Amino acid sequence: MPERELKALRAVMRREGASLCLVPSEDAHGSEYPAAYFAAREFLSGFTGSAGTLALSEDWAGLWTDARYFLQAERQLAGTGITLYRMGEPGVPSLEEELAARLPEGGVLAFDGRVVDRRLGERLEELAGRKGGAVLLKDLPGEIWQGRPPLPCGPVREQPLDLAGESRTSKLSRIRERMKEEGADLHVVTALDETAWILNLRGSDVPCNPVFLSDLVIGMEEAWLFLREPEAWRGTLEAEGIHVLDYGKFYERLPELCRGKAVLADSKKASMAVWDALGMARRLVDRPDPAVLMKAVKNEAEIAGMRKAHRKDGAALVKFLHWLKTHVGKEPVTELSAAAKLEQFRKEQQGYLEPSFETISAYGAHGAVVHYAPTEETDTPLEPEGFFLVDSGGQYREGTTDVTRTVALGPLTDRQKKHFTAVLKGMLALGSARFLEGCRGVNLDYLAREHLWAMGLDYKHGTGHGVGCFLNVHEEGGSFRWRQPPESEVLRPGMVISDEPGVYLAEEYGIRTENLLLCRAAEENEYGRFLEFEFLTLVPIDLEAVAWEDMGPEDIRRLDRYHREVYEKLAGCLEEEERLWLEQVTEPVGKNLQKTI
Amino acid sequence: MPERELKALRAVMRREGASLCLVPSEDAHGSEYPAAYFAAREFLSGFTGSAGTLALSEDWAGLWTDARYFLQAERQLAGTGITLYRMGEPGVPSLEEELAARLPEGGVLAFDGRVVDRRLGERLEELAGRKGGAVLLKDLPGEIWQGRPPLPCGPVREQPLDLAGESRTSKLSRIRERMKEEGADLHVVTALDETAWILNLRGSDVPCNPVFLSDLVIGMEEAWLFLREPEAWRGTLEAEGIHVLDYGKFYERLPELCRGKAVLADSKKASMAVWDALGMARRLVDRPDPAVLMKAVKNEAEIAGMRKAHRKDGAALVKFLHWLKTHVGKEPVTELSAAAKLEQFRKEQQGYLEPSFETISAYGAHGAVVHYAPTEETDTPLEPEGFFLVDSGGQYREGTTDVTRTVALGPLTDRQKKHFTAVLKGMLALGSARFLEGCRGVNLDYLAREHLWAMGLDYKHGTGHGVGCFLNVHEEGGSFRWRQPPESEVLRPGMVISDEPGVYLAEEYGIRTENLLLCRAAEENEYGRFLEFEFLTLVPIDLEAVAWEDMGPEDIRRLDRYHREVYEKLAGCLEEEERLWLEQVTEPVGKNLQKTI
Repeated sequence: MPERELKALRAVMRREGASLCLVPSEDAHGSEYPAAYFAAREFLSGFTGSAGTLALSEDWAGLWTDARYFLQAERQLAGTGITLYRMGEPGVPSLEEELAARLPEGGVLAFDGRVVDRRLGERLEELAGRKGGAVLLKDLPGEIWQGRPPLPCGPVREQPLDLAGESRTSKLSRIRERMKEEGADLHVVTALDETAWILNLRGSDVPCNPVFLSDLVIGMEEAWLFLREPEAWRGTLEAEGIHVLDYGKFYERLPELCRGKAVLADSKKASMAVWDALGMARRLVDRPDPAVLMKAVKNEAEIAGMRKAHRKDGAALVKFLHWLKTHVGKEPVTELSAAAKLEQFRKEQQGYLEPSFETISAYGAHGAVVHYAPTEETDTPLEPEGFFLVDSGGQYREGTTDVTRTVALGPLTDRQKKHFTAVLKGMLALGSARFLEGCRGVNLDYLAREHLWAMGLDYKHGTGHGVGCFLNVHEEGGSFRWRQPPESEVLRPGMVISDEPGVYLAEEYGIRTENLLLCRAAEENEYGRFLEFEFLTLVPIDLEAVAWEDMGPEDIRRLDRYHREVYEKLAGCLEEEERLWLEQVTEPVGKNLQKTI
Repeated sequence: MPERELKALRAVMRREGASLCLVPSEDAHGSEYPAAYFAAREFLSGFTGSAGTLALSEDWAGLWTDARYFLQAERQLAGTGITLYRMGEPGVPSLEEELAARLPEGGVLAFDGRVVDRRLGERLEELAGRKGGAVLLKDLPGEIWQGRPPLPCGPVREQPLDLAGESRTSKLSRIRERMKEEGADLHVVTALDETAWILNLRGSDVPCNPVFLSDLVIGMEEAWLFLREPEAWRGTLEAEGIHVLDYGKFYERLPELCRGKAVLADSKKASMAVWDALGMARRLVDRPDPAVLMKAVKNEAEIAGMRKAHRKDGAALVKFLHWLKTHVGKEPVTELSAAAKLEQFRKEQQGYLEPSFETISAYGAHGAVVHYAPTEETDTPLEPEGFFLVDSGGQYREGTTDVTRTVALGPLTDRQKKHFTAVLKGMLALGSARFLEGCRGVNLDYLAREHLWAMGLDYKHGTGHGVGCFLNVHEEGGSFRWRQPPESEVLRPGMVISDEPGVYLAEEYGIRTENLLLCRAAEENEYGRFLEFEFLTLVPIDLEAVAWEDMGPEDIRRLDRYHREVYEKLAGCLEEEERLWLEQVTEPVGKNLQKTI
């Protein structure tokens, strides 16, 4: 199949005088999940992985992807004539090295400027410049793509003020304050979740993320929203000083909006197409988008909504865990059927809309594959032994959840229990931190890793990411990383960040325990303001997986305190049988342990 | 007295056409303790504090100092006509603000370019430039200073290879490697401890720091050492390609040495005078001095030396603590006499030379003054109650020590014990950390503060500083800070860093417990290389000050493990009575506690 498509694209390249064409997988908004409209790389290569870049010339085509997708890419590229470049393997040239080698003197390198970020785009420009050539910002695959999926165009709905907690007028005025401070009179927003948050609107154009295709330009008096169906919102928004225009007109209108203005925009986020338009500005104020930090710091209404969503989600999880513990080994359950069952329990909760990301439902060795999601091909029955890891979340009208639990389906080895316990202690320790305002994630990350590092173990992912409120489950702002970049944000009251240490033993098992933490103010005194965390996630920890000899008194106090909270907040949301089960699995262990010592 | 001096200086200012003259307290090497030769500010103002800057015009004089010295400065400046500017107090203009306000249009601002660092110097240049004026780099106070103390000129001795662990030829060749990597062919070193380390020489020109006045210029084939008494070393060093010149010729020779060269120098360290000379370079490679990191990472011989010095120092401290516990309340002991006694015990140790800094010997409320050092005026008798804090260190031929212990001289309140215990737990936790290579102090600092922050307490100083090996007790390189600057070094095996949390309650008491930590390699596996710390300091912790109910099992294990090590390593260096005392005060408490629970 790719053969015909590649041939057609090469004909267009010849017509346009392009020696090389680059086809990435990103959309025009830096989204985590691009809409099918943007899947040109998949259309041309047949490779369906979430990360990968295709490049081709008249007589060569190559695809770069990372270790997660080597096997899949091999299979999907077989017979296409496309060479697989295994990123990170020794001796494999990088995309830019290969393009530099293949671009002839004076050659033209074509790519869609909307979907290539400015940093890569400028390096490509430089690379072409060194050969006396140039780049051509044009969507060449679009010209031959018959049956291209249309741009999504889901309904856009108002997020009511009692859930949003702040009117868009107030948010726009805070952003304009920041613009003023930075000496800017125009601000360009292309990130979909920022626009959704600023305008208190939600959509359904991207699976799992309640956002809608749009671009937003904010002036000091007026604003311009580019929307797929502008008519639906023109009346309401025009009255608030927001012009509503057609999404397709953004790149046409942007240069004239920027002309002569001091424009605030984040050069790390801008696409090449936006960067080009910013060339019309009088001055570029290259700063992070103000909405990023504002959105990361949840207001009282959002916090109330997040707590509410987490009670619902906790109830669904308790029902699921109870079902799992009472059904596995008695009737056939697989990774896929378990995930479906969990989704069913979530759907029973009022205000639940959809998962906040693709559910990771991983039995045994699958748990060691950090981003595993079961497919028909990999689906595995759950046996009454070992670990089952489930990482999932929900989008509720009031808020977004993200929780991981690793469950003992039957007997565990001592090693499994020791690993589970080290992860648990780290998760509880980070969530129990108390610290002076000014700390960043980098100051606290050690707490989550301490017991793993003491055993010579580690997990090769960050400890925590920001989470939106009925928005994207992966959100910029606060985070926990031990190699934190210096520009990372300090932790602020109102931030919601995940706390998810893990252990992954390839071919054996994976363990991860994840709660969402809400940062909140504690005591303020002559030393400064102290901050602490509240566990938003309310889901019991599987005590059958704990190595009690490794739990110190403080660990047990933390666990018991958490379980008491889980029980108290969820008891009223459960059927009697489930309530009894929850009561039993959250019973304080501190007292019993003291007796046995 | 200052009246006459200021009058004389003003006459010189008029002659030189200077409207303003700035007189700082620094020496020409960024030393922590400048020699008396550089004390022009003290000479002119009578103010003897370690930090403070004098500025004057024809009809005004002002002195800036920080909160530590407000009282002292008030007293010492009384009647001099010099206005005290209390730094950090609301409404008090900064030095630069005041100079900007007082410099007339076209005025000249004079200062000694050797003792003003480039960053301040350039800001002063800018400030003068805005007024159409200029700076004059000249040591005006020097011209009127009759009886100025001579530049120190202590003997310079070789640090033998078995203690230094690496020849100067090898060190120079490693520095030249780094110069080559940075594209430099000349390197200027003005920091005294760097030159001492590079050349395996030690001196006695600065109290507590075994360094000597010098400057060093390193070329790719030869080097130039500027020394107070060049003759003594010319023979030995010329043979190794190091020209030995007179210290006084440095500023004269530097420009010609730099001419046409690519010079590696740290702009953050350079004085204005050096910076000026660097103007002759073909190119400036503005990078940290390579010797900083090399020196911070101790080699095997240095590590062995540090361990040996710490055994001697530990023995002296045990003798002292035993004496203290058996004498306070029975015969008169004061802060000064206790410090003298400690010095006497250190002097009994072979290879001991001098304190590594001024001893902090602080009883009761004096312990809350972080940099308190007793004087005849403040000296206080030690009573058999409350806390005595002693922070001291020694220079031994093999290494440098720095240790703080807080001792119960009699009954303590529960609150005192709780605070002592929180500090102790933090000190032990940081020293017991195990972490992946790549971590910096910022990743671990929380461990030292955790229990204090949990109680709403904090200490307003860093947790730890680098320590030299028979060199400066405060050394650049590794450190523990929670607000760590992004350019801070990663922790490396061989680094020696202090671990010194504390609690300070003004007018009540102060607690600090300080051990030096040696970073060393632990397990290496598929996750990377793990590092850990070894406690270099071997001095018992006062168990009479511990609130046992706050010590978890892990805290007790750490304490017992440390005390076992202290006893095993020191038992052989003590008299029988002291050995018995040490055995008793380091007896493992884990077992006894378990019995009583």
